[in-house]
Amino acid sequence: MTQIKKRRLQRVTLQAHQIVPILQINSVITLTADQKHYLCNVLRLETGAEFIALDRKDGWWLAKLVSLDVAEIIAKLENNSELVAQITLGIAMPKGSNIESVIRQTTELGVRQIVPLFSDRTILKPDNEIGKQKRDRWQRIAEEATELSLRTYVPEIISPQTFRYWLGEIASSPILKYICVISPDAPHLLTHLQSTLQKNDLQKTDYQQIAIATGCEGGWTTKEEQIAIASGFVAVSLGDRVLSAVTAPVVALSIVSAFLDTK
Amino acid sequence: MTQIKKRRLQRVTLQAHQIVPILQINSVITLTADQKHYLCNVLRLETGAEFIALDRKDGWWLAKLVSLDVAEIIAKLENNSELVAQITLGIAMPKGSNIESVIRQTTELGVRQIVPLFSDRTILKPDNEIGKQKRDRWQRIAEEATELSLRTYVPEIISPQTFRYWLGEIASSPILKYICVISPDAPHLLTHLQSTLQKNDLQKTDYQQIAIATGCEGGWTTKEEQIAIASGFVAVSLGDRVLSAVTAPVVALSIVSAFLDTK
Repeated sequence: MTQIKKRRLQRVTLQAHQIVPILQINSVITLTADQKHYLCNVLRLETGAEFIALDRKDGWWLAKLVSLDVAEIIAKLENNSELVAQITLGIAMPKGSNIESVIRQTTELGVRQIVPLFSDRTILKPDNEIGKQKRDRWQRIAEEATELSLRTYVPEIISPQTFRYWLGEIASSPILKYICVISPDAPHLLTHLQSTLQKNDLQKTDYQQIAIATGCEGGWTTKEEQIAIASGFVAVSLGDRVLSAVTAPVVALSIVSAFLDTK
Repeated sequence: MTQIKKRRLQRVTLQAHQIVPILQINSVITLTADQKHYLCNVLRLETGAEFIALDRKDGWWLAKLVSLDVAEIIAKLENNSELVAQITLGIAMPKGSNIESVIRQTTELGVRQIVPLFSDRTILKPDNEIGKQKRDRWQRIAEEATELSLRTYVPEIISPQTFRYWLGEIASSPILKYICVISPDAPHLLTHLQSTLQKNDLQKTDYQQIAIATGCEGGWTTKEEQIAIASGFVAVSLGDRVLSAVTAPVVALSIVSAFLDTK
C-alpha cells in the first residue's frame, strides 16, 4: 500500500554517471543542474523531501533530498510495469519530426529499444547528418514518456543506421523478428504471435526479445522485404487498412503489448 | 485483379448534396470547386481520366471525368477494408489540438463515429463554444485519413457533448460498451473481448457495434467511472503502463481492430 502511494511521487531519471558503480540503498547522488532546478525550483521540494529516482534499467528507487544538491537512496520500489519481453522497434524514419510522436507513444507502450533506420524510401539519406543534439532530444522525449507512463526502464534510442546494416546485426540473433508489410497474404501480427505460442507450447515469459520493423511513407520496397525475410524476419500485416508511417509502429506495439499483458 | 489496380487511383470524397437521391452507375456528379481544383489543377487529370469517388457510407465508385466540371459513375468497386463491427469512440477532449492526431490515427484504424466529450477533467467546458469551423476541420481530417488508409467509410465527427449526456443517449442501446480505466482490477480489453466471444459462443460478425470511451489528461473521475458502469459500460484496462490521453484511444482501436481482423 505504501508502495502504491510512493508511486505518486515525482520522478527523476538519473544520468549514467550518477549510477556508478551500482545503485543501492544509502547510495549518495549529486544532482545535476537540471535535476536541481526541477526538484528545487520547479517543484519547490525542500531538504528531507522524497522523490523517485529511475536508474534507466529496471529499477525505481525512493530518494530523499539531504541538501539542495545531494540526494540519498533510501529504498527500492517494486514496479511491474515492464513487458515480459524486450521489444526492439526498427523504424524507417518518417518525414520531418514525425519520429518524435512515435518515440513518445511507443515508449508509453513499453518499447525497450528504438532503432531509427534509413530505408530505400526515407527522405533522409545516411550521409545527412543526424546531429547529437537531435538524438539527445529524442532520448529526452523517451525519458519524459517513461516518467509519465510510470515505467521503470528508459528505452534506448540507437544512432540511426541503414536498414541493411541493422538486418546484418540482428540476423544471427534467435529472437522473434517481424517486418510489417501491406499484403493480403501476410498473416496478422496477433495471429502469428498467438499461433507461435500454441504451436511451440510456449509461455509468454519465454519470449525474451521481439524485434519489429515498420516502414516509412510509401512502405518497404519489395527488395527490402525480401532481404528481411532472408534475414529471418516474418512478414506480418497490421490489419486490412493502410496505416501511416506514424501510426503503424504504435499499432504494432499495441498488439504486442496486449498479447504479452493478457493471460 | 483490375479491382486491385483501380484501388491505386486517386480518391475523392463526395459531399452529401452530390449523392442525392442515391449513387448508382450512370449517376452524374457536378464537381465542387475544391474537387475540380484537386483533380484538374493539382493532379492535372484530363477529360476521360478515372478516379475513385467515396460516397462516405460504404462504397467506392469508379468515376470518369466527362468534362472538367462533371464526372460520371461507371462502376462500383469492391473493398473489404471496413471492420465487421461499427466502432464508436467517445473521447474526453485532450488539451489544445491533440484531438486532431486522435481523429487521424483512429480513422486509419477503422473507427466509424467519434464523439468528442466534455468530462469532469477536460479543460474546455461545455459553455466554451466549439465553432463550426473547428468541427469542419476535424471532419476534413477524417476525410483525408479515410482516403489515405483506403477505407470506404468516412467516420462521422459528432458535435461535442457532455459525457453524462452521451451516457444517457447510449445507455438503452444493447451494444458492447467499454470505458478504459487505470486500475489493476479491471480486465484487459483484449481479454474481455475474447472471453465474451467464447462465453456466449459468438462469431466476430455478431458484434454489430462497440462503443469505447477514453479519458483526457488525468483520466476519468471515480464518479464518472461509476455512472458509466451503471449505464452498462464495462471498465477495462489497456495494459500495465499509464497511457497519455492521445495514445489511449489509438491503443484501444488497435486492440479492437486486431481482435476483429483476426480469424
